[in-house]
Amino acid sequence: MTTAATPNPTLGELLDAWPSMDAPERAATFAALDDEEATDLFLALSAADQGSFLSGLAVGARRLWARLLAPDDAVDVAQSLEADAAVLLDALDAPTRAQVQALLAYREDEAGGLMDPRYAVLRPEFTVDEAIAYLRRQYAAREDPTYYTYVLSADHRLVGVVTMRELIRAAGRAKVSEIMTREVLSVREDADQEEVARMMARYDFLALPVVDAEGRMKGVVTVDDAIDVMTEEATEDIQKLGGTEALDAPYLQVDFFDLLKKRAGWLTVLFVGEMLTATAMAYFEDAIAKAVVLALFIPLIISSGGNAGSQATTLIVRALGVGDVRMEDAMRVLRREVLSGLALGCVLASIGFLRIVLWPTRDSLYGPHYMLIGAAVSISVVGVVAWGTISGAMLPFLLRRLKLDPATASAPMVATLVDVTGLIIYFSVASAVLRGTIL
Amino acid sequence: MTTAATPNPTLGELLDAWPSMDAPERAATFAALDDEEATDLFLALSAADQGSFLSGLAVGARRLWARLLAPDDAVDVAQSLEADAAVLLDALDAPTRAQVQALLAYREDEAGGLMDPRYAVLRPEFTVDEAIAYLRRQYAAREDPTYYTYVLSADHRLVGVVTMRELIRAAGRAKVSEIMTREVLSVREDADQEEVARMMARYDFLALPVVDAEGRMKGVVTVDDAIDVMTEEATEDIQKLGGTEALDAPYLQVDFFDLLKKRAGWLTVLFVGEMLTATAMAYFEDAIAKAVVLALFIPLIISSGGNAGSQATTLIVRALGVGDVRMEDAMRVLRREVLSGLALGCVLASIGFLRIVLWPTRDSLYGPHYMLIGAAVSISVVGVVAWGTISGAMLPFLLRRLKLDPATASAPMVATLVDVTGLIIYFSVASAVLRGTIL
Repeated sequence: MTTAATPNPTLGELLDAWPSMDAPERAATFAALDDEEATDLFLALSAADQGSFLSGLAVGARRLWARLLAPDDAVDVAQSLEADAAVLLDALDAPTRAQVQALLAYREDEAGGLMDPRYAVLRPEFTVDEAIAYLRRQYAAREDPTYYTYVLSADHRLVGVVTMRELIRAAGRAKVSEIMTREVLSVREDADQEEVARMMARYDFLALPVVDAEGRMKGVVTVDDAIDVMTEEATEDIQKLGGTEALDAPYLQVDFFDLLKKRAGWLTVLFVGEMLTATAMAYFEDAIAKAVVLALFIPLIISSGGNAGSQATTLIVRALGVGDVRMEDAMRVLRREVLSGLALGCVLASIGFLRIVLWPTRDSLYGPHYMLIGAAVSISVVGVVAWGTISGAMLPFLLRRLKLDPATASAPMVATLVDVTGLIIYFSVASAVLRGTIL
Repeated sequence: MTTAATPNPTLGELLDAWPSMDAPERAATFAALDDEEATDLFLALSAADQGSFLSGLAVGARRLWARLLAPDDAVDVAQSLEADAAVLLDALDAPTRAQVQALLAYREDEAGGLMDPRYAVLRPEFTVDEAIAYLRRQYAAREDPTYYTYVLSADHRLVGVVTMRELIRAAGRAKVSEIMTREVLSVREDADQEEVARMMARYDFLALPVVDAEGRMKGVVTVDDAIDVMTEEATEDIQKLGGTEALDAPYLQVDFFDLLKKRAGWLTVLFVGEMLTATAMAYFEDAIAKAVVLALFIPLIISSGGNAGSQATTLIVRALGVGDVRMEDAMRVLRREVLSGLALGCVLASIGFLRIVLWPTRDSLYGPHYMLIGAAVSISVVGVVAWGTISGAMLPFLLRRLKLDPATASAPMVATLVDVTGLIIYFSVASAVLRGTIL
């Protein structure tokens, strides 16, 4: 109740506190607000929070709240309610319910699932004065902002776009067709939501019309939805890079067992992969028995490769994601990463070499051949870091070529891959360098 | 030249190909376009690309192109040119140059550095008819869209906001002060750009007014700039989580030695930290000499902790970043992560135990005490995974408490931290379980 009791929390403070509140605290918070504040809060909540709020209401109150939602937002709420979507649908008026049901037929992550089916429309043969009068009537019925006004032919094909500014500037008797922009960029209703968001960001659009295969207008995606998509997609990429499945909901709102399932999957795959290190190590058991000193550097060497690989894969996954690097750039990236990997390996190898050969107790710790051990370790570091860097950088390209998400190449996955090969590199180098002395 | 020679590349195709083109290819591309297409391309390029394009032009041509830029975009170009900012400033007309120089006094990552100093303004005492006529004249002079119209008092304080729609809907003789919204959310000129972007995303604003300490209006931040900030900040977080310094430029455009420097820094720190594993291992050298079989599982055990830690830190860094989790939630997160860590540890430990005790060659590989070895390994896995999960989840909170960026808790950093403690856990458990048998 603490939050509701605070004298005058701002909308921002309420939204900040929302994820940490339980159901009674949320109800008390709503009860403490006046109508306008409560409406603002409700509309600013996430679809999941709107859904759980509506579920807790009596039928009459639910109807009042549900009708504040624009159809595209109502679709998000219905999707978040999953099997309980009827809670929302039954609360809508009949025409909106029909619109929402039509939108629910689209996948959640395509343009059709994101669009608002209501938008301001003009006909090309209107005069500017007629257009303004017509828009006044259209506007009177709705609350949310209109960005552009679309000009449609009689068969509902998108033929142009005008801004409010162009209408205001134009002479009253000019035809809409004379002042409209004819080249309208649009997206197909089945376009991926990431593509839609990227297009809006690239061209600084406030809204993007959605058309079907015949070019008939179906709706608009607005910039606020594009921003949500971008945040959602960045979160998904970050989670995948960290070696989890995408959570699809805020951390504190994911059910504990769902969270566990999404984390255990990749950890198990990686653990099973990492078991190959035990298998690989078994081959080198005799070498370790002869020269236990070799075991001391195993964690250092494999983790250097893992860290270098995590770096490279993260850089390339993001660069591919935002379009800074394309599939055609694979060879350029390879050249850069071969050089980077060798250079980074040499930097770390020098530090490692000095650490071993200048260590005060080097004789008792590493024995008389400490110079050779230093050489074996540092040559291995060069090899392992270069290998980690190159494979970490190339794996995202390989995954995309296989039509998989490059972000599947998580930092832990690359680290695990590099661990196994790192051991093989280390023991091969060590046996070459130390043969005849301690091996 | 391949791209320029393609018959009719779309603007999108040109932008896709841009990062991979060299200077002559870019010049040829511009030459092949008509004026309107060239303008669209220029305005859609990144500030860095606009700067390098302008640098390559003769003074006369440069002037024509530079004047297409809005003041806030010109600021970005000037910043990208660094020491060569005069290339741009000299090409601007005097009033715009003065505006740009005023904006350059702000830091690049604060609201003032992001805002456009030009915006549509009304006075509260205007009638609606006067307002529309006034806006027509203001509009005639500028090209980019206006989102909201701000109402300023005589001393330039922000007193209200009206949308174009509200003006069009209102009666011609109503006063602006009667139809305007008086509660205007704004940001201070020194607000962090991340806060600005988050606020616009949260409230679905298309523009946000920027005011000084006295509430006087200084400019507007528009949603297209907020989108760029969000993409930039997500990229920075992802790069930091991957263990690199933020690149601050597209991967292929970062100078090779800069790239190396930004990667070598953290890798060196982590390498030096990881050397502690060699020190820790030295304490256990006798144990390894007695039971070489223990060495076989070192990579498996420490990497399990590293992977679990990477997962946890990534989840929490992102959740803190988007506001799904707040500092006050630290104890809730701790409780969740203790349980998650133990549960994940048990899942992996069971797999590890079965892998060891059911392996066909277990007797020759692990000796007669393979059950005890299985027990030592799996108890260690539980401890290491739980420790990795808990420390990975709590480190971002600690960093934020220390006023550092939580994303500094990179996946490689957590993995390195966990490696050292993981070894200590493993050898302590092993010596307790195996004492009297093989140790």
